[in-house]
Amino acid sequence: MSQNVYDRPDFYKAYTEIIDRSEETIASDGSWSRLHKLVPDVTGFDILDLGCGSGWFCRWAMKNGAKSVLGFDLSEKMLAKGRSLTEGNYTGIEYRRVDLETLELSDEHTGKYDLVFSHLALHYLVNLPTLATLVNRVLKPGALFVFNVEHPIHTAPSKPRVLTDDTTGDKYYTFDSYYKEGERISNWLAPGIRKQHRTIDSYINIFLSTGLDIAGFKEWLPTAEDLQANKVSEIDKLRPLFLMMSVRKRKE
Amino acid sequence: MSQNVYDRPDFYKAYTEIIDRSEETIASDGSWSRLHKLVPDVTGFDILDLGCGSGWFCRWAMKNGAKSVLGFDLSEKMLAKGRSLTEGNYTGIEYRRVDLETLELSDEHTGKYDLVFSHLALHYLVNLPTLATLVNRVLKPGALFVFNVEHPIHTAPSKPRVLTDDTTGDKYYTFDSYYKEGERISNWLAPGIRKQHRTIDSYINIFLSTGLDIAGFKEWLPTAEDLQANKVSEIDKLRPLFLMMSVRKRKE
Repeated sequence: MSQNVYDRPDFYKAYTEIIDRSEETIASDGSWSRLHKLVPDVTGFDILDLGCGSGWFCRWAMKNGAKSVLGFDLSEKMLAKGRSLTEGNYTGIEYRRVDLETLELSDEHTGKYDLVFSHLALHYLVNLPTLATLVNRVLKPGALFVFNVEHPIHTAPSKPRVLTDDTTGDKYYTFDSYYKEGERISNWLAPGIRKQHRTIDSYINIFLSTGLDIAGFKEWLPTAEDLQANKVSEIDKLRPLFLMMSVRKRKE
Repeated sequence: MSQNVYDRPDFYKAYTEIIDRSEETIASDGSWSRLHKLVPDVTGFDILDLGCGSGWFCRWAMKNGAKSVLGFDLSEKMLAKGRSLTEGNYTGIEYRRVDLETLELSDEHTGKYDLVFSHLALHYLVNLPTLATLVNRVLKPGALFVFNVEHPIHTAPSKPRVLTDDTTGDKYYTFDSYYKEGERISNWLAPGIRKQHRTIDSYINIFLSTGLDIAGFKEWLPTAEDLQANKVSEIDKLRPLFLMMSVRKRKE
């Protein structure tokens, strides 16, 4: 059975108290402000959102001219929140409870989507190659799959910590085990959250070997403005937190 | 003036004593055995080798059916060694002393090459975008530029070390400064060797923005066989040493 942390009461409580990822606040969200640059103009688009959570991107897309958005998530709680924020305010959005590890889509979805989107969901999946094949099937030729994940440099360490050299004051991130793909346990917001570490090699080759081309690649790096305004945390000066990519379905 | 470490007596002496990168020994070289997989069949190819050193790849390519190889390097000593190993044994190879930072090529080179190759040279260059534009101009449509560099995870740290946790025995690589591109000083073989740290974001986007597509991407990771045979050093279990890429000139 796939992990469903968002329906775990301890995680959900911590998440909803700390993370306010609504369509009103995403403009100032560091992950979205960077990922946004890889998202094309969505006017008239049929969109699939893999791991939509409470649907902030679904509503952003409808507000920005999309024709339809189908949002998939495993968490009943997040979908319920999404529906309550959507009903009466937006048309064209459908939320569906699915497990991305075992997702199947009928022939009517083949070649249908102008954009597939996924925000911070793929690093929970064991079975990414199968999902990549599915995404390639449901995209229109020339259309993009845009996603972000926790960066492989961030997920690699077996015991990620920031340490300080006593004599020099230098700070560093304890880096190891990059080549060892597989489960990492995070205690972010709640203990025992399972995620999957993959190398950048794997993220790129899973899509290249599926027949998708690399269209965009961005690492979460401090911006000059944030550095100047002293708004970058110590750890974000050491290592990139997220990796953002867009991959394009070939035309022939 | 560009750095020319191979003509520095201390570096050259240490290099020639330790590194035996000849066409007889490269088969067992970890960097070439991985990069090799990105190199296409070179039969009938006109090839450009950027940073050819003593020309081991030039001779490998001629032995494997290439039509011609033009090898560029800054080091007189390495080129002299290359010429002495080539004369009387191979035809079709020309060695030329050039500085890759300021390389210019006349119109006769435009669209001429079936393959451009570079082995462990680009991480010394400050001006990679200009070289990428030149490579794109001299490649035939659909042809590849295949190269490797020191991996950005390897080059990032300001003071790269392997430290051991006294209580657990865990080893880690001191990782920091990933976002800070620019000069790093290495003391490999000789003190004060200057190299350039770039993010993976930069390596990919320099080529994408030049109009080249990402065709292959490989990180230096321990192989299952090497791990089983206990042939992987401690540091190679922590972080990838080299990054290998191939980028393709677009056809239209």
